[in-house]
Amino acid sequence: MKVAVDAMGGDFGPRVIVEGAIRASQEYKAEVLLVGKEDLIKKEFDSLPHSQAKVAIINASESIDMEEGLLSIRRKKKSSIRVGTELVKSKEADAFVSTGNTAAIVYISKKVLGALQGVERPALSLLVPTLKGVTLLTDVGANVNCKPQHLVQFAVMGKVFMESVMGLKNPRVALMSVGEEEIKGNDLTKEVHERLVASSLNFIGNVEGKDIYSGRADVIVSDGFTGNIALKVSEGVVETFFNMARAEIMKNLFAKIGFILMKRNVKKIYKKIDYAEYGGAHLLGLNGVCIIGHGRSNPNAVKNAVRVAREFVLQKVQEKIQIELAKSLEPSLGMKV
Amino acid sequence: MKVAVDAMGGDFGPRVIVEGAIRASQEYKAEVLLVGKEDLIKKEFDSLPHSQAKVAIINASESIDMEEGLLSIRRKKKSSIRVGTELVKSKEADAFVSTGNTAAIVYISKKVLGALQGVERPALSLLVPTLKGVTLLTDVGANVNCKPQHLVQFAVMGKVFMESVMGLKNPRVALMSVGEEEIKGNDLTKEVHERLVASSLNFIGNVEGKDIYSGRADVIVSDGFTGNIALKVSEGVVETFFNMARAEIMKNLFAKIGFILMKRNVKKIYKKIDYAEYGGAHLLGLNGVCIIGHGRSNPNAVKNAVRVAREFVLQKVQEKIQIELAKSLEPSLGMKV
Repeated sequence: MKVAVDAMGGDFGPRVIVEGAIRASQEYKAEVLLVGKEDLIKKEFDSLPHSQAKVAIINASESIDMEEGLLSIRRKKKSSIRVGTELVKSKEADAFVSTGNTAAIVYISKKVLGALQGVERPALSLLVPTLKGVTLLTDVGANVNCKPQHLVQFAVMGKVFMESVMGLKNPRVALMSVGEEEIKGNDLTKEVHERLVASSLNFIGNVEGKDIYSGRADVIVSDGFTGNIALKVSEGVVETFFNMARAEIMKNLFAKIGFILMKRNVKKIYKKIDYAEYGGAHLLGLNGVCIIGHGRSNPNAVKNAVRVAREFVLQKVQEKIQIELAKSLEPSLGMKV
Repeated sequence: MKVAVDAMGGDFGPRVIVEGAIRASQEYKAEVLLVGKEDLIKKEFDSLPHSQAKVAIINASESIDMEEGLLSIRRKKKSSIRVGTELVKSKEADAFVSTGNTAAIVYISKKVLGALQGVERPALSLLVPTLKGVTLLTDVGANVNCKPQHLVQFAVMGKVFMESVMGLKNPRVALMSVGEEEIKGNDLTKEVHERLVASSLNFIGNVEGKDIYSGRADVIVSDGFTGNIALKVSEGVVETFFNMARAEIMKNLFAKIGFILMKRNVKKIYKKIDYAEYGGAHLLGLNGVCIIGHGRSNPNAVKNAVRVAREFVLQKVQEKIQIELAKSLEPSLGMKV
């Protein structure tokens, strides 16, 4: 097993990524190919303990910033993201992991690797923490204009992922809408609802925005526009809440003491809701394995992203997706795709 | 000024509504018409202090539950919501306030009152608290399938509301999308972006989900499907966060003591982020004034909803909306509607 890791992505520079990659290699006996500026990576690698780690460095002379626009992304032919995905394309690596610019990874990996045969649109999928475990949201931003058949495919792919990688039996699939009754929704979701009811999936119906973090469903399907906004709203609410809390607590001595007493627990909660910790997002339906860690990833999160990449490969998620999609096309199941 | 108030709506029964209505009448010298089951209302009214309050009771023999479906809503011709909106229709009341079932209020008020001339779709609009004040989200659920011209109208109506009722000068209008650059978005938002740039509005461009609560914009426009999900996700995040926090705090004595010391401040924050306090949602562009308070409204929130209804009427929001929409149609402004 060889996993290529983009050493140039993320908010904290190459060091945390190199450290995470070394740990992943040690723990999972995987060979890690660190992709990026050779001298920088080598310097970090040498300064970190790395006994028994199998790590190679693949040079990539360019890197893409977290905020870089599509135009400049397209121009950089030697970026670590492009070189990394090309390693997957040429089968020199089994999977690619990056904590870099999500839009760049989505664009480049779709361009270089393309979609699996039978998949119309690869879906950006993310595991989010809930009260009961984790839920897969798909799509969270790769496809902002969707047709009904796209969402049905997202549902099938999400089911395969939760079954194979997360080990769930018969995952509960739900559709994000504005009300639980099947008549609630827009034209897109009403049509998708009908098709999911007719499918062989364990479809539990519509869920509302408030249900994302309740753990009611294992897979929640939406178009990428809605999914992205749902995700960003969540981040905004948490950030606003912590900002308001900070201002409020600083006004009052008792509250300050109270906060100090609670600090460890608050940190624990923050860690629980921080989806950087949950192994990252991934592009389901891509013709190649590509895991996207959060920009805020620490070495542990990088290691987790490599673990997910490895599971993806070991569990043959790609092949299973193709089998399930083909099955869903069989007329005997009465499913319109 | 006469404001009809639905005494049967809300999660806490008629008492809190009657109390809020009495206080509103006392404070704003408005006459309040309490609509609902006469005997119930009378009992509550008599048991509450009500000196100088001008309150009349209008009997409505049916009421609609918070979770009631559309089918049964349609059948109830004598519901307090229908009787209340009919009072506006017949000009016996200047405005209607309800803290009942939002879907029922939207459906009935659109049916009974219709849209203002020139308005294609009335928009459910909500004031949400931000780090810097309040922002108007529009639409948050009345129109789940939207065309570009609908969103442009929402923007114009939202601007008029923030200017007239909230007293803002030249409100900043933004479009909810998946990235700030104008090329980011789905087919709908790209078209709307172009039209808003060409309009005479103070359009500041796209904002992302995380910006709803940052206070960057005074009006955020979206289709009702996306807006509803954004809102429900926010509720879900806050609820999940408090549930996780409770479980975490209960595990540890120091944290428990810490929480007790912070309790007053936590309550303050909760109050700050609880949009039940902010005067409710309203249907912009309806041919009549209709304010929808949150089901969780306490007497103070009911009073605030009556205050907003009163401002709506006094500031002639309806007329201003028609003037601004007509202006936006003038070819000299180069605005395609």
